[in-house]
Amino acid sequence: MPNPSNPAAETIESIGENASLKRTISRLNKGEHELVGPGDDAAVIAAPSGSFVVTTDTLVQDHDFKLEWSSGYDLGYKAVASNIADVAAMGAQPTVLVVAMVVPKTTLVSWLEAFADGLRDACETLAPGCAVVGGDLASGSQVVISVTAHGDLQGRQPVLRSGAQPGDVLAVAGTLGRAACGLDLLASGNADLVSAWDDWVNVQRRPQPPIAAGIAAGTVGATSMLDISDGLAKDASRIAAASGVHVVIEPMQLQGFEAILEGAAQALAASPQGKMTATEYEHKWVIGGGEDHGLLATFSPEATLPRGFKKIGQVVALGADQEPTVYLSDKPIDAGLGWDSVTGS
Amino acid sequence: MPNPSNPAAETIESIGENASLKRTISRLNKGEHELVGPGDDAAVIAAPSGSFVVTTDTLVQDHDFKLEWSSGYDLGYKAVASNIADVAAMGAQPTVLVVAMVVPKTTLVSWLEAFADGLRDACETLAPGCAVVGGDLASGSQVVISVTAHGDLQGRQPVLRSGAQPGDVLAVAGTLGRAACGLDLLASGNADLVSAWDDWVNVQRRPQPPIAAGIAAGTVGATSMLDISDGLAKDASRIAAASGVHVVIEPMQLQGFEAILEGAAQALAASPQGKMTATEYEHKWVIGGGEDHGLLATFSPEATLPRGFKKIGQVVALGADQEPTVYLSDKPIDAGLGWDSVTGS
Repeated sequence: MPNPSNPAAETIESIGENASLKRTISRLNKGEHELVGPGDDAAVIAAPSGSFVVTTDTLVQDHDFKLEWSSGYDLGYKAVASNIADVAAMGAQPTVLVVAMVVPKTTLVSWLEAFADGLRDACETLAPGCAVVGGDLASGSQVVISVTAHGDLQGRQPVLRSGAQPGDVLAVAGTLGRAACGLDLLASGNADLVSAWDDWVNVQRRPQPPIAAGIAAGTVGATSMLDISDGLAKDASRIAAASGVHVVIEPMQLQGFEAILEGAAQALAASPQGKMTATEYEHKWVIGGGEDHGLLATFSPEATLPRGFKKIGQVVALGADQEPTVYLSDKPIDAGLGWDSVTGS
Repeated sequence: MPNPSNPAAETIESIGENASLKRTISRLNKGEHELVGPGDDAAVIAAPSGSFVVTTDTLVQDHDFKLEWSSGYDLGYKAVASNIADVAAMGAQPTVLVVAMVVPKTTLVSWLEAFADGLRDACETLAPGCAVVGGDLASGSQVVISVTAHGDLQGRQPVLRSGAQPGDVLAVAGTLGRAACGLDLLASGNADLVSAWDDWVNVQRRPQPPIAAGIAAGTVGATSMLDISDGLAKDASRIAAASGVHVVIEPMQLQGFEAILEGAAQALAASPQGKMTATEYEHKWVIGGGEDHGLLATFSPEATLPRGFKKIGQVVALGADQEPTVYLSDKPIDAGLGWDSVTGS
């Protein structure tokens, strides 16, 4: 926790921002891509194929996370995972990240060290060779974590959102709905449920995006791809809109994703905190939940799906005067709101 | 101002974050280096010489700026200027930036649009061809601006802080002390002084780092270089420490930098808000003030100084058991605190 209850504990304020930054940086792994690492005005990074991929995202306390629900370690892990998922969604290999942190002056140095451990472990686990090569530490009223991630296409074309063709196969890599399930369990405030289904809570805290599958999709020539950060329905609608096609999701193909969440859904529905039926929870999580950071991609019907991808639907041509739409079987989904528009929640 | 007094004015909250982001992005210039621009999971940037330079920095409201003193336009301009100065300090050409913004929900859309105008104008003025290619907008309790800037070495070696050699010439490009003078004028709260010396206040608001001079220094083989962000004394001490040398600044060579600030120094010293003599103000600003984002570099004695650089001293070998030190003539400066350590302020 950033706010110490032990007044003797070291804080950013007590040891200073420079020393805090040094202590943090010393815990990071050394990557394989830096020609000049941290410590100068800028780092120098190899880009052997003549280009690089770059994306940025920010996590804000009480908007994107709660310090009561996620440790410093969790947040470091998630900051890396959610950003390198965007790199992999271009079909690129994640190479280096820079991380800008704003924290209250009362933040414990041990919290920041755990954050650095999370950064390191996520790099080593999810994208070996990738590392944090630069950072910035400032003080402010709330925790803000701003990450910029980079990747290398290794000579391949980037996989955009706009290349899906009628007849293509729609496929997903990674898990669906587990992080959203974990979030509802945390939000219930029911410690027994959180403890019983901690696997799903941990996906919320430390997502495991399928980085290698994204690179493999780039290698076999996926026609479109994105990181599922806002839910299957909403992110599928982005491919539909960018590509000018309909996207049809087959509910049968989602049953496996729903079945694995059935126990948690039933327990939450039956608890005093339950707000909908177990089936409604399962649908909401799998169709509307995004923070697993799985990958949604389309492939030509002749392509062999890369390891880790599972077919969940197909791409269909627009009829005359039709707007790009996401269908669940033959029923349009209001993709702007995901499953929530159905239940009204 | 982020907090509108006109309730009918459009705010981030009233039009939504996505629409606000779109309105902002539409005002940016198109750069020369992006292969895939904004709108996908990530941008793809050309790196023709097989590497790229990357640096990140964060500006936090009430720590690094005050909304009462800087407009949205000023802050956009400064965010670009301060970051591409770090890129130029490696001897690299600035190419692309990504910008993550956190703002209160009550922020006016017009403020954000002015911010984008500042980003664009700084790119076009200071580093033509450079552009913002990605961004993120989130809401939080205070304004946080996090910028990651990139550059291309165009086949040259990066200029580090660690290469200064005894006998080298110490030189500075850009202005010294003007931004610090402007800050003291703003902090005085004396509107007449701010108005009379608005040129120096404007350097504080919209610094003009000498980007072309940094690239030229890389081209002629400067032995070390950095962006003066924390004051001449402190930043000179970084070159001394990284290179294992003494750095000697010749006070005579600083007289021109001080003379130009004399009028403001005299006016402030004579005002009810004055805290030191005019001479003390001049010294403090030129030796201790950093936000002009000038460049400090060392060159071999045979090198012709690139256009824009002015000699201010030299590099001297350490004696036995000596620690790297910055001297003003023959007097060591406490570089850790810059000029402030002398005046005690």
